[in-house]
This record gives sequence, C-alpha cells and structure tokens, in this order.
Amino acid sequence: MSRTTPELLADRARLMGPNVSTFYDDPVHFVRGEGVWLWDADGRRYLDCYNNVPHVGHCNPRVLEAICRQAGTLNTHTRYLHDGILDYIEKLTGTMDASLGTGALTCTGSEANDIALRMAEAVTGRRGIIATDATYHGNTSLVSQLSKSNIPSVGFGLDRYFRFVDAPDSYRAPDPDGTGFAAAVAEQIAAHEAAGTGFAALVVCPYFLNEGLPNHPDGWLKPVAEVVRKAGGLLICDEVKSGFGRTGTHLWAHEKMGVVPDVLTLGKPMANGHTVDGVAANGDIVKAFRQGYRYFNTFGGNPVSCAAAMAVLDEIEDKALVANAKTVGAHARQRLLALKDKHEVIGDVRGSGLIFGAEMVLDRASKEPASTFTDRVINAMRHRGIIHSKLGRHKNTLKIRPPMPFSIANADLLFDTLDEVLSETPVAP
Amino acid sequence: MSRTTPELLADRARLMGPNVSTFYDDPVHFVRGEGVWLWDADGRRYLDCYNNVPHVGHCNPRVLEAICRQAGTLNTHTRYLHDGILDYIEKLTGTMDASLGTGALTCTGSEANDIALRMAEAVTGRRGIIATDATYHGNTSLVSQLSKSNIPSVGFGLDRYFRFVDAPDSYRAPDPDGTGFAAAVAEQIAAHEAAGTGFAALVVCPYFLNEGLPNHPDGWLKPVAEVVRKAGGLLICDEVKSGFGRTGTHLWAHEKMGVVPDVLTLGKPMANGHTVDGVAANGDIVKAFRQGYRYFNTFGGNPVSCAAAMAVLDEIEDKALVANAKTVGAHARQRLLALKDKHEVIGDVRGSGLIFGAEMVLDRASKEPASTFTDRVINAMRHRGIIHSKLGRHKNTLKIRPPMPFSIANADLLFDTLDEVLSETPVAP
Repeated sequence: MSRTTPELLADRARLMGPNVSTFYDDPVHFVRGEGVWLWDADGRRYLDCYNNVPHVGHCNPRVLEAICRQAGTLNTHTRYLHDGILDYIEKLTGTMDASLGTGALTCTGSEANDIALRMAEAVTGRRGIIATDATYHGNTSLVSQLSKSNIPSVGFGLDRYFRFVDAPDSYRAPDPDGTGFAAAVAEQIAAHEAAGTGFAALVVCPYFLNEGLPNHPDGWLKPVAEVVRKAGGLLICDEVKSGFGRTGTHLWAHEKMGVVPDVLTLGKPMANGHTVDGVAANGDIVKAFRQGYRYFNTFGGNPVSCAAAMAVLDEIEDKALVANAKTVGAHARQRLLALKDKHEVIGDVRGSGLIFGAEMVLDRASKEPASTFTDRVINAMRHRGIIHSKLGRHKNTLKIRPPMPFSIANADLLFDTLDEVLSETPVAP
Repeated sequence: MSRTTPELLADRARLMGPNVSTFYDDPVHFVRGEGVWLWDADGRRYLDCYNNVPHVGHCNPRVLEAICRQAGTLNTHTRYLHDGILDYIEKLTGTMDASLGTGALTCTGSEANDIALRMAEAVTGRRGIIATDATYHGNTSLVSQLSKSNIPSVGFGLDRYFRFVDAPDSYRAPDPDGTGFAAAVAEQIAAHEAAGTGFAALVVCPYFLNEGLPNHPDGWLKPVAEVVRKAGGLLICDEVKSGFGRTGTHLWAHEKMGVVPDVLTLGKPMANGHTVDGVAANGDIVKAFRQGYRYFNTFGGNPVSCAAAMAVLDEIEDKALVANAKTVGAHARQRLLALKDKHEVIGDVRGSGLIFGAEMVLDRASKEPASTFTDRVINAMRHRGIIHSKLGRHKNTLKIRPPMPFSIANADLLFDTLDEVLSETPVAP
C-alpha cells in the first residue's frame, strides 16, 4: 500500500517498535534510485551524497543484470560446489597483499567482524580487544561491544573484554606520525594484560570514518601495527566503509595507511546493497579458526551474492571508479577549502577521494563543536534536495560519501547548495 | 571460469581454508535449478528432496520478478521511510497470534537468534539459556553456543550461560505428553538459578527438526511452556526450519505444538534464498530490547528483501502450498510406512507435511542406530539423482524436506528410488 509520511511513521512505531532510527527531522520517503540520484514519493529528486552501500550507483545495470541472471539460474549454498565463490575470492584477494589469500563470506559486516574477533581468540588464546571510543563495527552481541557510543544495555557481559582509546583527532589533538595513537593502544594492551584478559586484537577502520576521518599522512598506522604485533595481537582492519576504492588513492585504505592487516573485514559496498560481506585473512588464521569450528553460513557466498559482488569489482575496474574518486575528491577538497575561506564556521576540511567532510565549529580559536548547527545544515540541505549526514566524536563533521560514479558537476551542485545553506543558517544556537 | 570437480575442491581448499563442509563423498556441482529440480555441470538432473531455503521452488518466477523489479527501482535502508517493510511485517504478523505484533528484520537466522537472546536478557535481567543437546540455531559467537555438537573452540567464554537437556526422542525415550521434557528443562532452570546465572530463556525449534523430528502429538510443548513462564523466562521458538507451512497442518509449528512463543525467530525459507530473516515478538519485549540499544541493521528490511519475502508469502497463499504439504506429506508417510514393512532397517517413520524421515537401525529390538548405513544410502541416492541428507542425535534419520511445490509424483520417484537403494545397500558395516 501507499502511505503518507505520518502514516509511515505511525505504522513504523506500531509494527517495528520504539527507537527505530530515521534520518532528518522530516524523514524522507524514497521510492526510486538511479546512479547518484534518489526520488521521493512526490517525485522530487535528491542528489545522494550519503549512501556508500550503492557503491557503483543506485540500480547499477551491471549489478542488476548479474543478480537477475544468477537468481534466475541457481541460488544454493556452499555445501555444493560452485565456481562463483571461487572466482570471486580469487579476484578479491588478488587485489590484496599475498598474505591475505583466504576468504570467508558472510551476510553482514557484523558477521564478518564477529568471526574476525573469534579468529583473534583462536590465534592468540586471549580475548582482550581494543577499539577507538567513537567507532562502529556492527550489531551482534559480541561486535556491538565495539561501539562505545551505543553499547547495548544487554550483551551477556561481553563488555569485560573491550577497552577503548581516544579516537584520533587531527584537528584538536594532532598526532602527525601516529606514535601518540600507538602509545595509547600500548597502554590499553598493558591494561588488558594486567587485568588477566590478555590482548587479542586491535580493530580499526584504517581511515577512521566513524571517528570523523582525521587528516593523517599515508603510513600513519605503521607505529600502532608494530605495537600490536610486538604484543602478539592481531591487527583487524574493518574496511566495510573505507574499502573498494573509496579513498581514491588505493583500493584498500590499509594500503594507504602503510599496513597489512592480519584480518580484513569487508561489507556494505561489496555487492552494491545485495547482502554479502566477508573476511580476507592469512590462511593460518582462517585455519586456526576453522579447525576448532565447522563454520557454515547458509546464505554466505551463495551464487547470487557472488555474482553481484563480482559485478561490483568489474564495474569499479571498467569505469575506473577509483581514479574518478581521486579526481572528484581533489575537486571537492578545493571547493571545501574555498568554502572554509568564506565561512568562519568551517574549522577544518578533511577527506580523501569520495569520503570527505568539514568540521563545524562555533569559534576557530576554541574549536568548540557546532553540533546543533551541523544538524540544522543537514536538515536544510535535505530540504534543498541534497542528502548527507554527520559524523565524528562531536557529530559536527559533515559526512559526505556518495556513490562512486559521483561527478565534478554533482560535486559543484553539492557545494553551491552548501554555500547557500551555510550563508543562510544562523550559527548561534 | 569453469572448473572440474577436482579443481573445484583444490581451489576451495586454497581459497576458503580447511574444514569447509561439502555434502556427499563425491560432492555435487550444481549449475541450474528450477522448481524441485537441480542440474549438475554435466547436465544431469536431480530431484531436490533436501533444500528448504528455495521454499517455493528454485528460481520461482514470482520471487525472481519481485527481486528484479525492486532491485531495478530502489534498494536502500530503514533510515528512510518505505512501504515495503511495513507491508511485509503487517502481513507476516497477521498470520500469527495477536501478541506477536512487532517485527525486526535481520539478514540471517543467526542475527535473529542473537537479538532474541538479548531480548530475553533485556526482559529478565538474566542470562541463563537452555536448549537441547542436538540442535542448531546459528553461527554468531553467542548463538553458536546453542549447538552442543559443534560449539566452537573459541567464543569469548559465552558457554558459561548455556545449559542443555536431552533432545526429545520419541523412538527411544517416549515422552508422549511432554511432561518429561518439561521436567528436564525445570532441572536445568534450577541449575541456572543455583549457579547464579539465573534463567532467561528456552530456545527450541517447535518441531525439533535438527533433533530428528520426533513424533509428538499436537500440543506437546504446553507443559514446558508452563514451566518456562512459571520461572519468569521467555519461550523463544526458532522457526527458521519449521515455519512457513513446512509441517502441512499449520503455517507455524508452534501453533501445532500448542504454544505462543514470546519471541519467534524466522529465516531460511523466508525469501526463498534471498538474504532476509527476522524476529516477531511481543511489543513490550521489543521495547525492552530497543530502549537500551538503538539496533540498526544496514541490509535488514531493505526494499528488495521485503519484496522477495512478500512474494514468498503470496506464493504460499496463491499456490495453496500448506495444503499441498499436507497432501503430499500424508502420501509420503504411507509410502514410508510401506517401506518400513518391507525393509527391516527402517526402525521408525516420522514427520508431518514436507518434513519427513525414517530412522535407520541395525536391529529393531536394540534400536542400535545404523549411522554409517544411512550415510551409504544418502550417497547412493545422490548417485541416482535424488538429493537429501540425514539428521538427528545419531545422524541415522533420513532428512527429507523438499521445496514446497513437491508433488505426489515427485514423492513416488523419491520412494521408488529409496526402495531400490535400501534393497541393494548392505546393512552390515
């Protein structure tokens, strides 16, 4: 049936329960998508500067064709033999360091991180995990403990195994060579050891997207990787958000940051919205995990998922989307820097490729976060047909990560509109 | 690329690691499916008597059309408003007791059971879970603890919260009114309480599919439900396998067993292989869970998943598949009973609707399980073009649960072939 917005909200409360997130003060009701565009139920068009899941564009024809072809041919599970999963893992791991040669496909990034943490326990025999205090890695009982800002009130006491370090903040607490972050992690490793938990793994998004994408030079993670390895722990890089060329300079953000993870987790953009995620890891690590446990995932790695995921890799390659991210990202950065010259409220400009943002502050000297202002900007942009969000420790950083076919013309529309909105929105609360 | 079977096996070991399950001594390489049929790479046709995920038939045209239509229109997430998820939850919960009026959609049955257990913790403030010793409910760190036969060697110490009761066994340890099972659960509740863990929930498949589908009269779960409620715990029914009309008499097996669960988890057949699963529960239970935790699932309840799931419900209805399961199931039962008269090795016949089986024994008096014989039968059937498996505590029960459009002619082909195989396969090890 076709509901009005008030009816949709009432039915959500009735059928889905309380506390189900929506975006914007006036939630949007989308009915159609194509490329970087979305249309609402009234036929209004929006430029999508937010959604990273439709990585190669909403309703990408190549992915759609792959899904429909395979779903009309066969969809079973990995207990039968099939070329699809092997072709995909071969191609995927072929883009990575040779040590990451073994793959396991899951259905969600949560499931990928859930087995990554168990791989760390299997290899180290220990359970102590470290993450930043402004991250997100998924929603299972175990993995949800990684999100300090939204740890569930229930979770079978698993919080005992998690310790947090301050999220990197290049604007307020510069740490240009990453040694400060490494020292903070070393401190929490020692705390895990002192508590008897022992240290199993550090889990990070190598580009720290949830943390507000701090400006770090390439290679910034090297010192912390050294600390982690010296302590006998695993480095788990969660590239659910930073992977598949998002940063424009590399296919994987861990390459940019100068490290090779022991376990790499992948998700959201992997099949453009079709549900497939997974892990790539060293064969010995997968072996340690699988020897003690015959892990099987009914839908994980099914032929349709693999066809959709393969189409995404092919599309990234054929359309040169990483290079596009670099070019358009460089242009976006220039436009953001120009806006910073004009608007006092922009304290800092950040990003690489098609993940970029600007931190909003009430005062450039004190760097006081302009969090409610950022909220007003996002809602005003939505009413002007531009979809994006906010992130970071203070929720005052614009979160802009459009589908990868985003063009310079798209970026100009985004920043022309942002310029107007920043001019018209009062900064004072 | 197109690999031979030895190449497929070698590449699986190389790319996926050790201990990745395959079915059959000579694993099958399927390339096409339609209705109840599968074809291997050599063009050979197999009757599918195993796969419950393609519930309304392999490559069902209605589901395929729904997936392709919606994937070509829009696929986003639940932070935007959309009619699809509301229409689906409304229709789904409309088939259940009014108390199960609130839904949460996940991507896998593992995720559904993972939040169900946390709902129990949220409502009761306790963590003690009880299950049978021959069940399976999924693969997250928490949920994998429910599978005593395959508990991972790693799992963050979560085993401390799980206790097991003997799986019901109507053949070897009859318990015709369910009071024995209720007493066994009461004992483990007391053990949880004595250990200080407290009792949070009992998790059962109401038709005990993994346990070997014991013969129980309708209403059999009533005594245990009473024990669970008296102790202040939740009854979680996992209908990932038993739901959507599989048993032929009811859409949901918990109705057949005379209980209304507090939380119902759903999965595999829900969208015919497209990745969608979920939970239906009392609104107060969902509220208790969601109040302490802003649960969000990127792919859960996306428009394509909901379109696929809706098409499955429509297809069940339009094709009268529950009635078909009843009719064909009754015929199958007669054929199985006739085979039992002929073949001494069949100790017991079980099932309802399109889930049925027969327990193989070396001796009808001692009831000694003929587990290796069962294995030989399954492998011989595979070579004759019939696909099924085994289950139960002793892995000696034929596991037959075909797609729901399975016909009487299909059943006759299955049992004619089984008759031949049972005649030709030596029972002695």
